[in-house]
Amino acid sequence: MRQHQEEFRIATNGRGIYEVSDEVRSVVDRSGLTVGLCTAYCMHTSASLVIQENADPTAAADLLAWLERLAPGGDQRSSHTSEGPDDMPSHLRSAITRTSETIPVADGNLMLGSYQGIYLLEHRDVAHTRILIVHVLGE
Amino acid sequence: MRQHQEEFRIATNGRGIYEVSDEVRSVVDRSGLTVGLCTAYCMHTSASLVIQENADPTAAADLLAWLERLAPGGDQRSSHTSEGPDDMPSHLRSAITRTSETIPVADGNLMLGSYQGIYLLEHRDVAHTRILIVHVLGE
Amino acid sequence: MRQHQEEFRIATNGRGIYEVSDEVRSVVDRSGLTVGLCTAYCMHTSASLVIQENADPTAAADLLAWLERLAPGGDQRSSHTSEGPDDMPSHLRSAITRTSETIPVADGNLMLGSYQGIYLLEHRDVAHTRILIVHVLGE
Repeated sequence: MRQHQEEFRIATNGRGIYEVSDEVRSVVDRSGLTVGLCTAYCMHTSASLVIQENADPTAAADLLAWLERLAPGGDQRSSHTSEGPDDMPSHLRSAITRTSETIPVADGNLMLGSYQGIYLLEHRDVAHTRILIVHVLGE
Repeated sequence: MRQHQEEFRIATNGRGIYEVSDEVRSVVDRSGLTVGLCTAYCMHTSASLVIQENADPTAAADLLAWLERLAPGGDQRSSHTSEGPDDMPSHLRSAITRTSETIPVADGNLMLGSYQGIYLLEHRDVAHTRILIVHVLGE
Repeated sequence: MRQHQEEFRIATNGRGIYEVSDEVRSVVDRSGLTVGLCTAYCMHTSASLVIQENADPTAAADLLAWLERLAPGGDQRSSHTSEGPDDMPSHLRSAITRTSETIPVADGNLMLGSYQGIYLLEHRDVAHTRILIVHVLGE
């Protein structure tokens, strides 16, 4: 068994949902591994990962709007406001989605289901550069 | 170190919570590995995984009811409605539970706590066949 | 490739958020591995893990308060009440945070982002001893 690790950056345009399936798949390809596990890791607490339906873009938009209703920007009950009214809600939306996703690899392919895509959720209002680490291990 | 990967199917009867601990444990047994990590992966975006209390079935029922209150079926604010009123809420309930769960293996056993069970959450109203991949690696 | 697994205990003082980054980092140090993956696993269903901002303690307090609003103690709609009014909400708060977190290791370091800390969330009102397993694998 062996492993392969890469880091990549995503420039976001502020609050939104950005598919990174191709970037993750490229790391699996470069690893040369045919069977194993792939972990994508997000080095932030106001951006997060989620695996969601990738067939219809309205699904991604609905997810963003729902997370905004669960943890609204500018909530007066937050005390952590030093970084702006969109910061604490960003941490909350990150806490209930994921910091990492782990996906099996088989026949050299990332085993995402037919309608699954890997997404970076940018929870802050303005543009950020986000760093992801992808780690693949197997044979 | 070595690895072992299997896929299995669960036929659900529609919206509900289905324990899969025994199915996952069987894969660990067949792997022959005594120390390592086991990852269960759900290939869907309207069904998900969660580790929850398995001692009292009312806990599982309460979890389902609460997820339904957080992301109600037929929510008029969703725009992704082409697959029915229970589809978008299914994606939302999946987004805040998990697509994969990773559990350590020691002494040949899956190290679930005394009251932990691994569950598949079927979020759609009607019956589906769901595919899970179990990957075990270790020594 | 090789692996290293340890278990440790955290004594909580009841409902709260407890940083365990140093404990997890110590296991990585003792493993002697320089590149790989580290998984922390929580053996409970009324305590859970989350990676959150560690720079400002108000962020952790806001997260706890928000989880309490999402899944309030003593919710009359719960039927699983045999273990007290804070038990079922503890399972719900665990279900939407995490049972395990997986973090890459590079140059012998746990690759947490600058503001990321690993936290144990104790969801029960009173003090408990919680067991975490940390598994590191790599080279």
